[in-house]
Amino acid sequence: MKGKFIVLEGPDRCGKSTQAKLLYNYLIAQGFDVELTREPGGTPTAEKIRQIVLEPGLDVRPMAELLLYEASRAQHTQEKIIPALQAGKIVICERYTMSTSAYQGYARGIDLKLIDTVNQIATTGLQPDLTLVFLMSDEYFSSRGEYLFSDRLEREDQEFRQNMRQGYKNLVERTPHAHLINADDDVDAIHEQVTELLKKYHITDLCPSQKS
Amino acid sequence: MKGKFIVLEGPDRCGKSTQAKLLYNYLIAQGFDVELTREPGGTPTAEKIRQIVLEPGLDVRPMAELLLYEASRAQHTQEKIIPALQAGKIVICERYTMSTSAYQGYARGIDLKLIDTVNQIATTGLQPDLTLVFLMSDEYFSSRGEYLFSDRLEREDQEFRQNMRQGYKNLVERTPHAHLINADDDVDAIHEQVTELLKKYHITDLCPSQKS
Repeated sequence: MKGKFIVLEGPDRCGKSTQAKLLYNYLIAQGFDVELTREPGGTPTAEKIRQIVLEPGLDVRPMAELLLYEASRAQHTQEKIIPALQAGKIVICERYTMSTSAYQGYARGIDLKLIDTVNQIATTGLQPDLTLVFLMSDEYFSSRGEYLFSDRLEREDQEFRQNMRQGYKNLVERTPHAHLINADDDVDAIHEQVTELLKKYHITDLCPSQKS
Repeated sequence: MKGKFIVLEGPDRCGKSTQAKLLYNYLIAQGFDVELTREPGGTPTAEKIRQIVLEPGLDVRPMAELLLYEASRAQHTQEKIIPALQAGKIVICERYTMSTSAYQGYARGIDLKLIDTVNQIATTGLQPDLTLVFLMSDEYFSSRGEYLFSDRLEREDQEFRQNMRQGYKNLVERTPHAHLINADDDVDAIHEQVTELLKKYHITDLCPSQKS
C-alpha cells in the first residue's frame, strides 16, 4: 500500500477522539491527504450494522455481536480503508481489531485465538502501521475512588473494565508498532507524544508525494 | 442434545419450503414437539441482519455479506435452535451452513476452508442429524432450454447457478448424514422419500418421550 494506516485504541472517554482530530488537523496542515474514520461504522452499511449492535433491548448473543462487528469491519476495510491506502492517503481510524480483542476477548471472555482468526478474515490481513493505545493510569482510577463499589452490578462493571484495561496492556506487548500512551497527561502533551511517534515510525517521511 | 436437527438445503424454488411444511405437519400429526425455522433469519435480530443483506442498492462486500450471514446464524443457533434441541424438540430448518458454502463459496468464490472456519464459529460446532439437499436434475434444466443464453448477464447468472449446483453435489459427498433428493419428482413422492430417510436415520425413533 502507498499510504499509512494509523489506529487509535482505548476505552471510552480515554481522549482518543480528541487526539484523532488534533492528529488529522496536524497532518492536513502539513499538506497530507488524510482520511479520518472510526469503528464500529465508517460506511453506510457499517453504520446500519452498528445500529443493530446498539439497539436497546435487542437480544444479541456474544458470538453474534462479535460477527456483526467483524462484518462491519470487513465492509469498512474493503470499501474505505484499503482504497484510501491504495490512493496513498494517511488513514486515521478510531478503534480497529485491538478493541475487539480487548472487549469481546479479555472482557467478555470469547477465546482470543478465535477472535484473531475472525479479525484476520475481516481485515484480509491488513495491519496498522502504528497503533496508539490510550489508557488512564491505575493511579487515576484509584484517586477517583473507582475501586470502592457497593452493589454487584457496579462490581461486575468494574471487573469488566479492569479485564479490558489489562487486555489492552497485554495486546500492546504482542502487537508490532503498538504504543501505550498515558491518557492522564494534558491534551497538548499527548498530541506532542503522538507527533513524535509519527516521526519515529516514519509515517510522515514516507508519504512525501502526497503533499499538495 | 435431546432433540434432533433436520436441515433442508438447495437453491431457490427447489421445493424445500413446501417439503419443510409437509414434514412439519407429518411430525406434528405423530405427536412430536416440532420447531420450524429458516435462515437467513429465524429470530428478530437475525431478521434485522437479513434486511441489511437484502437492501437494494446497499454496498455489501462479499466478506461482509459472509460475516453478516454468520452473525445471523450465530444468533439463530444460540437463541432458538440449541434451546429447542435441549428441550427435546425436532428442529426443521430451511438452509444452514451448507447454503453458505454453496453460494458464498462455490458460486461467489470465497475460500471454502475460510467458510468452514466461520461456519464452525457461528454454530459452535452444532451439526445437523440429517441434511436433505433438494436439486432439480440437469435434464430438467436442459428440457427448459436454460443452457441457451443470449447476453453476458444471463450467461454469468447461469454460471453462478451451475457452480452453486455443483457445490451442493460436492458438499453432499463430504457431509455426514446428508442426502441428495431429486427435486423433479412430484411433491408427494418426495415427501415419502423424506419420511423414509427419517426412519433410516432414526429421527422419529429417538424422540419417543416427546410424543404428547
